[in-house]
Amino acid sequence: MKRDITDLRIGVLGGGQLGRMMLQSATDFNLEIHMIDPDPSAPCAKIAHSFVQGDLQDYDAVMAFGKQMDLITIEIEAVNTDALKALQAQGKKVFPQPEIIELIQDKRKQKTFYKANRIPTADFILTENKADVAQHRDFLPAVNKLGKGGYDGRGVQVLRSEKDLDKAFEVPSLLEKLIDFKKELSVIVARSASGEVKCFPLVELVFHPQANLVEFLFAPAEVSAAIEAEAQQLAEDVITKLDMVGLLAVEMFLTQDDQLLVNEIAPRTHNSGHHTIEANITSQFEQHLRAILDLPLGATDLIKPAAMVNVLGENDYTGAARYEGLHELMALPGVHLHLYGKKITKPFRKMGHITITDENTITLKEKVLQVKEILKVKA
Amino acid sequence: MKRDITDLRIGVLGGGQLGRMMLQSATDFNLEIHMIDPDPSAPCAKIAHSFVQGDLQDYDAVMAFGKQMDLITIEIEAVNTDALKALQAQGKKVFPQPEIIELIQDKRKQKTFYKANRIPTADFILTENKADVAQHRDFLPAVNKLGKGGYDGRGVQVLRSEKDLDKAFEVPSLLEKLIDFKKELSVIVARSASGEVKCFPLVELVFHPQANLVEFLFAPAEVSAAIEAEAQQLAEDVITKLDMVGLLAVEMFLTQDDQLLVNEIAPRTHNSGHHTIEANITSQFEQHLRAILDLPLGATDLIKPAAMVNVLGENDYTGAARYEGLHELMALPGVHLHLYGKKITKPFRKMGHITITDENTITLKEKVLQVKEILKVKA
Repeated sequence: MKRDITDLRIGVLGGGQLGRMMLQSATDFNLEIHMIDPDPSAPCAKIAHSFVQGDLQDYDAVMAFGKQMDLITIEIEAVNTDALKALQAQGKKVFPQPEIIELIQDKRKQKTFYKANRIPTADFILTENKADVAQHRDFLPAVNKLGKGGYDGRGVQVLRSEKDLDKAFEVPSLLEKLIDFKKELSVIVARSASGEVKCFPLVELVFHPQANLVEFLFAPAEVSAAIEAEAQQLAEDVITKLDMVGLLAVEMFLTQDDQLLVNEIAPRTHNSGHHTIEANITSQFEQHLRAILDLPLGATDLIKPAAMVNVLGENDYTGAARYEGLHELMALPGVHLHLYGKKITKPFRKMGHITITDENTITLKEKVLQVKEILKVKA
Repeated sequence: MKRDITDLRIGVLGGGQLGRMMLQSATDFNLEIHMIDPDPSAPCAKIAHSFVQGDLQDYDAVMAFGKQMDLITIEIEAVNTDALKALQAQGKKVFPQPEIIELIQDKRKQKTFYKANRIPTADFILTENKADVAQHRDFLPAVNKLGKGGYDGRGVQVLRSEKDLDKAFEVPSLLEKLIDFKKELSVIVARSASGEVKCFPLVELVFHPQANLVEFLFAPAEVSAAIEAEAQQLAEDVITKLDMVGLLAVEMFLTQDDQLLVNEIAPRTHNSGHHTIEANITSQFEQHLRAILDLPLGATDLIKPAAMVNVLGENDYTGAARYEGLHELMALPGVHLHLYGKKITKPFRKMGHITITDENTITLKEKVLQVKEILKVKA
């Protein structure tokens, strides 16, 4: 007998900011969410139905947590997929499926999947070590990416010329052609267990030059309708070919000659979808829950143009976080603050984000700059 | 030294649905919210930073809870105000102020306040007992309201003619002229400690004929701009004359001859503001937090026309709640479900609400009827 969604014990691997916003959304559907995270003071620790400290990469920890659940999902992909497979074999629902998490954990497998499935992506070479990279000097300038373990800008470096070869990774990695792109774009797409697929509108990302993570985002992306349609089709192709259930963020480059190339994918809610909380009819967090619960997917229309700004720890501060400029920030109309509940700030640590909605896209961009000037996270 | 808002221990008296939506909003600002409620399985029990079971009317329980807090607020007005006054005297911030909660707890004091402050309201007589009411048969048809203890339709009855006099309350009550109104309207107004005052747009309420509680709500109200402005001015007058800090819901009648009369007020977030979560730039829950934290008040503009429908327990069912029609409901675009996490349904119990947003107000009203047909709470 199918039980009510409100009766399920839902387990989430990871208790960071993505989990936190998922919790806020899950409350609307009266879902019972349990969480596990290695950090005892993780953003979700105090507000999940239950919280256990545990290593997400540890087989036993994930098994012990998962066997008490009916449905298991993730908010970070660095998790023990063997345990998830074992749980799935025991009859637990696990979305996204462990095999897909595993594929995405390894950027080499990810790229190989694109190639095998004719998903357009930057040319690449798989490399085993530094010496291997050195043999491909003709391929430079290129991006050298760790196969496994990279996160939030770590494990990714540009090798511009021969003199950078010495920096190359000593472990299995890939060497990817450096793309001369006009824009970085992202589509978030959801697919439910019943096979319903729905995309969010295309957004445009601006990366932080030093920290290699998203600094601003604009929605809608300033591209033609044809490019948006093509990007959405590409995202739908990827999730369908993966046969994945859940939410998938598909980051793309738009090249100087208007080609779309898939850069990276993440099988979960994503930084490029935070604005959907205020700016779209359904948020990415609700959509993720709808997809894994096999509910009908929600409408994804953008209600108002929006910008999202990550609130990063200031470069020179490490310690107990202090928020300068909160009052001034909150006096700006249409500015929505989300703080992630992290006690400690570090240089470029994601401490929160701000979503700005405004009918006028020029005002919107002005407000982005203003907001960045006002709010500072120091210690 | 003024501490960061994220350092405060905020205590909320009551852990029901209003507290639950306040928690969802408080997470955005990284606020630490502690709650007390008599029901150990209250909607907030599992998701507040801490939760204690306790009688909100009990002096010692409120004192024990409150003395651990920096700032105390409410999500229900039936609380021990003597304890709140004592906590205030100890230097705790208490918003809304205990004196105002006390005034509003007693509908007789409320009405006397309107009269003293020239706030337009229906004519009334204070009555001490049934015999007292019987002396005012010329005043019928009238509404007989308990001075204290009424809630969600309880403690309010219509005395249409002499033959109803036998039903009259035996305790201190009031007899209020039955108003022949065109519409019931509500304005939610906020006032911060610094004295900033801001109204939400006027909304229109449709009451359930049997249960005497809000069944639907439409925003914006279909009235002239002049009436809206007058209603907002009235709400601002009330909160300013009360010298209150926090959020105040001001329910009004619009009479057949277009007079506005204040009916009842509630010094907290209110059922008539639930739609603001999706439909307005700032939600009533965030606005309440801004007001009591003395942050600048948020913009209140309506983004899209909206309707709110209370999800009430079906009349014939008491027991563990089951939600019929969830899948079908969620397939409707622009329909936002909020379930309150109550395990047990009872006839007309508020189990959740649904907000519908739609540019087209005709479609909006059609969807209200559709939604009511689809979702049923049974046991």
